[in-house]
Amino acid sequence: MSEIAPEIEIEETASAAETDIAAVGRLAAAIADRDGLAIRGLLDECHPADAADILEQLSKEQVSQAAKLAPEAFTGELLSELQWDLRDDITEVLEPQQIAEAIRDLDSDDAALVLEELDDDVREAVLSEVSDEDRTLLESHFEHEEETAGRLMQRDFVAAPEHWTVGDTIDHMRAAGEDLPDVFFDIYVVNAAFAPMGAVAVSQLMRSKRDARLSDLMSDLRVTIEPDVDQEEAAYLFEKYHLFSAPVIDEAGRLTGMLTIDDMVDVIQEENKEDMLALAGVNDAGLSDSVIDSVRSRAPWLLVNLATAILASGVIAIFEDALAAVVALAVLMPIVASMGGNAGTQSLAVAVRAIASRDLTSANARRVIIREILTGLVNGVIFAVVMALVAALWFQNWTLAGVIGLAMVINLAFAGLAGIAVPLALRRFGADPAVSSSVFVTTVTDVIGFFAFLGLAAIILL
Amino acid sequence: MSEIAPEIEIEETASAAETDIAAVGRLAAAIADRDGLAIRGLLDECHPADAADILEQLSKEQVSQAAKLAPEAFTGELLSELQWDLRDDITEVLEPQQIAEAIRDLDSDDAALVLEELDDDVREAVLSEVSDEDRTLLESHFEHEEETAGRLMQRDFVAAPEHWTVGDTIDHMRAAGEDLPDVFFDIYVVNAAFAPMGAVAVSQLMRSKRDARLSDLMSDLRVTIEPDVDQEEAAYLFEKYHLFSAPVIDEAGRLTGMLTIDDMVDVIQEENKEDMLALAGVNDAGLSDSVIDSVRSRAPWLLVNLATAILASGVIAIFEDALAAVVALAVLMPIVASMGGNAGTQSLAVAVRAIASRDLTSANARRVIIREILTGLVNGVIFAVVMALVAALWFQNWTLAGVIGLAMVINLAFAGLAGIAVPLALRRFGADPAVSSSVFVTTVTDVIGFFAFLGLAAIILL
Repeated sequence: MSEIAPEIEIEETASAAETDIAAVGRLAAAIADRDGLAIRGLLDECHPADAADILEQLSKEQVSQAAKLAPEAFTGELLSELQWDLRDDITEVLEPQQIAEAIRDLDSDDAALVLEELDDDVREAVLSEVSDEDRTLLESHFEHEEETAGRLMQRDFVAAPEHWTVGDTIDHMRAAGEDLPDVFFDIYVVNAAFAPMGAVAVSQLMRSKRDARLSDLMSDLRVTIEPDVDQEEAAYLFEKYHLFSAPVIDEAGRLTGMLTIDDMVDVIQEENKEDMLALAGVNDAGLSDSVIDSVRSRAPWLLVNLATAILASGVIAIFEDALAAVVALAVLMPIVASMGGNAGTQSLAVAVRAIASRDLTSANARRVIIREILTGLVNGVIFAVVMALVAALWFQNWTLAGVIGLAMVINLAFAGLAGIAVPLALRRFGADPAVSSSVFVTTVTDVIGFFAFLGLAAIILL
Repeated sequence: MSEIAPEIEIEETASAAETDIAAVGRLAAAIADRDGLAIRGLLDECHPADAADILEQLSKEQVSQAAKLAPEAFTGELLSELQWDLRDDITEVLEPQQIAEAIRDLDSDDAALVLEELDDDVREAVLSEVSDEDRTLLESHFEHEEETAGRLMQRDFVAAPEHWTVGDTIDHMRAAGEDLPDVFFDIYVVNAAFAPMGAVAVSQLMRSKRDARLSDLMSDLRVTIEPDVDQEEAAYLFEKYHLFSAPVIDEAGRLTGMLTIDDMVDVIQEENKEDMLALAGVNDAGLSDSVIDSVRSRAPWLLVNLATAILASGVIAIFEDALAAVVALAVLMPIVASMGGNAGTQSLAVAVRAIASRDLTSANARRVIIREILTGLVNGVIFAVVMALVAALWFQNWTLAGVIGLAMVINLAFAGLAGIAVPLALRRFGADPAVSSSVFVTTVTDVIGFFAFLGLAAIILL
């Protein structure tokens, strides 16, 4: 009774979330010593999710080296836990037979994940090593595009005909045993054409009498998903309707697979990560990336930013005479641009988030756009007053203070407008609003900021 | 058999993700007409998740008005689906008895969610309207802090003693019927002290023979969670170990509640939203926010940004003589600052994301810091060459070109360093790295950018 002391539980809870730093050090040492046995021992002794966390602390070179020294430590479960870029580096090192061996015991969706990033010829070589049945199942995943429901779905699910009772179903499951998916939540009730008619939660089945009919217990299917639906869309439906699983149906309306919430959690995290990095102008990033990888994923957006920064400088160049006459303009102008850029980014983050969660639609776009402009105006007035006072004290020039205040109001109102209008416009044209909005918005705020401040100064001060 | 035509399914799939714009218009019209019956009819006819989406398209004033006109339309399910700020506005309008009526049929965790934001006296009034049993259950949620496992957990769960067989368990569940949670995935096997010893997935129970013992079927508990664990930490454990539910244990090690994956999906989304908004300098944001709400959530960070922008301007002011002598410096200096700001933000987004996913730890921090600096250096050299050529062509001045190139290399290297060092330092001091990193990083890149460019110019050009 007292074998489980609370202290032990607490220990486990606290450590479960943190990567084992000491183990990272031991693994790095084993790789440096080229000690395959030690590498295998270290990776085998922890849960695949922990082993993956430990490997993700190392550099790509170290991980490739580990895969060369101890290929058999990279089990299917471990491969499916790893970030795709690291997985890619490992499967490059492994032989096709070793990969085939590793994926043998995985569910087909996880196995497809491992195979997804392989070069076509390597994938063919791996598939030639597995059983005919497995090959057919795996190939069916690749009939669907990446990042779709069809690619993600599990091919194993539990379906029962409408006329079955609870007793029939339980007897069937006891007989099927190992052929059932590892874990499942819903039993899909299908008609003679194998179209899903409803679902019975397993917990519902458990508490119902043996003679109850599935057709009486089943609840309506709120959502059925087609294989070509984007994974982000599918995840949104899970989140919105609090689903645990959802049936995937083919063109003929037949049940063909099942999506489960645990896979959707991964999708949600991945899409959130993509949005956040995209907003900051990073194409893709893994912590194990080399310097070259990092440069490659960031340089394109820096190039775009350089072009827009030069554009903004072109605006400044128009007012060279004013700048030469009043050097205080050069000192103050970055403040106007910086405040506009910040206000625009705030507005943009709210908009991108609202678009991702489907809260910003054509029904409320007008109201939200007006709100953003007004918010910009109000903040503009507040900070115009503050900045005008600072400028007046600093340069003892009340006209200059008035100019920077007015420019601030103008720029922050445009910042609010750009922050919401740019992502909405990008979405209208079918682009991802997270990806390129940021650079457009700061271009607007730089150009408007410099133009308003220096233009007003040229008119009023000179 | 053919009642379910594929077309119908496709319709449902496509429409399920999108908010019904027409319904938003009808609801807005009903509110404008002060037609309580129509409001109730519109909200009742859709799924609570859809009704919540429709309401979230309206302004706060419209929603409050709807709650006044049709209080009974705001069922517990609808309230629990709404964003907290809108829920707050509605419960302000409803009478305590109406709130008590609404939450009657909710699970205790959802009911606690609705009560959470109420003023203390309103909450007391609501609690005095519910049964003693429900009140005790609800009050137990409020013993735990907001955003902890204790606040989120369900108090209903299924526990079975070690010596039970599959048959005992199924018989018990059939008898318990309505008293069981609506949906559950795991049966916790407890010892005589009510400490959880393992778990049996319901799907596992279903396919096992009636005489199999739970203690033979159960798998080890990978994770047990204490009530005071932060919800983000709990969600991370679910994600990492692909959990569907996890037991919550009290100080004595007794099973006291259960967390389920659907609640964790909400936590993950909320934490992601917070991080993304925090990086952009927005404290909190709902689409239904008024202009005043928006100003309040954004002005604080704009004020901080103004202070740092003035600091950067102070750096510029040091070099007034150089600016007065060479006006091209004023034209070009924002480019150096802008490129640094962008590179720093890229590095920062990668770091914040890696910290949130626990991939950036003390084991790899040194390697990643060096990588970020080198990435900044390499990008710095690339864009130094590009920008030097542009400057040389523009101003026909190769010395100026050399100065801006050199300043670019320096600023981008510091940008890479600041992008990763600032969030790591904030975390070391116990602050949320997402919240204030951005403003520190751009301050560094502005100050270094202006100092390097204008300082080098003052030395070399004058």
